[in-house]
Amino acid sequence: MSDDSLVSRLASDRARVDDRLEALFAERLAPAPRLEAAMRHGLLVGGKRLRPVLVYAAGRALGAADDDLDAPAMALELIHAYSLVHDDLPAMDDDDLRRGQPTVHRAYDEATAILAGDALQALAFEVLARASHPRLAALVATLADAAGRDGMVAGQALDLAAVGGHPDVAALAAMHGHKTGALIRAAVRLGGLVAVDEADPRLAALDVYADAIGLAFQIHDDVLDVTGDTATLGKTSGADAARAKPTYPSLLGLEGACRRADELVETAVAALAPLGADATPLAGLAHYMIERDY
Amino acid sequence: MSDDSLVSRLASDRARVDDRLEALFAERLAPAPRLEAAMRHGLLVGGKRLRPVLVYAAGRALGAADDDLDAPAMALELIHAYSLVHDDLPAMDDDDLRRGQPTVHRAYDEATAILAGDALQALAFEVLARASHPRLAALVATLADAAGRDGMVAGQALDLAAVGGHPDVAALAAMHGHKTGALIRAAVRLGGLVAVDEADPRLAALDVYADAIGLAFQIHDDVLDVTGDTATLGKTSGADAARAKPTYPSLLGLEGACRRADELVETAVAALAPLGADATPLAGLAHYMIERDY
Repeated sequence: MSDDSLVSRLASDRARVDDRLEALFAERLAPAPRLEAAMRHGLLVGGKRLRPVLVYAAGRALGAADDDLDAPAMALELIHAYSLVHDDLPAMDDDDLRRGQPTVHRAYDEATAILAGDALQALAFEVLARASHPRLAALVATLADAAGRDGMVAGQALDLAAVGGHPDVAALAAMHGHKTGALIRAAVRLGGLVAVDEADPRLAALDVYADAIGLAFQIHDDVLDVTGDTATLGKTSGADAARAKPTYPSLLGLEGACRRADELVETAVAALAPLGADATPLAGLAHYMIERDY
Repeated sequence: MSDDSLVSRLASDRARVDDRLEALFAERLAPAPRLEAAMRHGLLVGGKRLRPVLVYAAGRALGAADDDLDAPAMALELIHAYSLVHDDLPAMDDDDLRRGQPTVHRAYDEATAILAGDALQALAFEVLARASHPRLAALVATLADAAGRDGMVAGQALDLAAVGGHPDVAALAAMHGHKTGALIRAAVRLGGLVAVDEADPRLAALDVYADAIGLAFQIHDDVLDVTGDTATLGKTSGADAARAKPTYPSLLGLEGACRRADELVETAVAALAPLGADATPLAGLAHYMIERDY
């Protein structure tokens, strides 16, 4: 897949999931309109839509139809969006800016931000359930597991505990493996599960791919926090250093961190071999993980 | 059903769901132990287990087996527990005491309480999905809908907006219909859905029952806030008045509120007629709603 076709596919997948997410708020009488507005703000203002893009790419690589991938793609983005809303709260990272806009608790208030995050999480499972897929049990269990105490939320807790501490690279990888890795793995796996049974060996190949790009993504995120500027990032650059958060560049140096990310992308691409040419867009996405500037 | 047998059934159902909830934390290597401890605190310290009890009673009334009701019973309690953890946060009701114990953010910290609530919500859907019921799509969609922006979370948002305002009885009922009513309705409906298809007319009868007892429950809660003492309640009595929260006693008078609750219990019991003798425990529970002292 050429860079041009990857870029246009990224753009069309983002537009596709954005349309569907937007439709969740169309033509409805919301019982709590301010809550709903805060949910929209947290979900629809900006965002790379990386997890939905991965759902589509992984599903298509195993032969799933786009229409069957919409619900998991939306569910992944809803979980991701809720986690950002809560992560930005004063008691957590206390961020004022997200995706170039005021965070939800700044645009609304703290209580509304807590509730908006809560409702976005519930909506993720509702959207998934309403799609009524034959493997729904596996889809819901995989997403819930990745989102909760064994996945993303555990990672957030480990991240908070690490501030001011001195974790090594292994501890940092374990934390990120939960905090961002679990949901990226779930995105790839849900896409795959739409197409094939849990026993299909190609899902195991996708897991290896997902773990590698998940970590590469995080390392690149840490790198961007050093090299990027606030306007491009849409969030405050240098925030990790300001909080004394341990990062890959702080542990490996900037060059060492970039080299580690390169190696992980090679690992990810190599894992795709059993999937043949259908996985070309997934390989392109692996490279994109460490080339994006925001 | 005699009062004695209702009381012993209540006790055995509580013990049953408590055992199963406790088992969710047994023999596991938690990636984030402090998070897990906070989840346990929010879930397992005290609690009436009213929603699980309703799941069991409604399911049995339509012929479901106890083993098939465990997962929905646990899921309902997990959602309820998460909502209490978040509701108690400083940005929300700012409560220090719950079920006679320090609230989760007091026993741990605010960030951990936010994350513990988030993880309890995810765990609810995971537990439900792992049970792999043939009507799983309806179970998950019903629970998510009741928990989210059209149900409980909307009610929390309306409740926050109402503080210091002057809602009438209808506005108060609408708020509580979302805040506590939606989850009580979901408890009864999930129990029923374990046994029968969504088209079964007995589910509609259960909905009428659930709406009536949900409101009666809330009115009685407001009454207890006036008449109860902190030790028995396990939370600060008089808290509603202290916050200038509108309540049924403040709008209808204490006697008027009690009368309204009595009428609702009559409505609930009358709705059970099509279910025959199998619904006797549900009728007993309706009376229990307005007789409990905590």
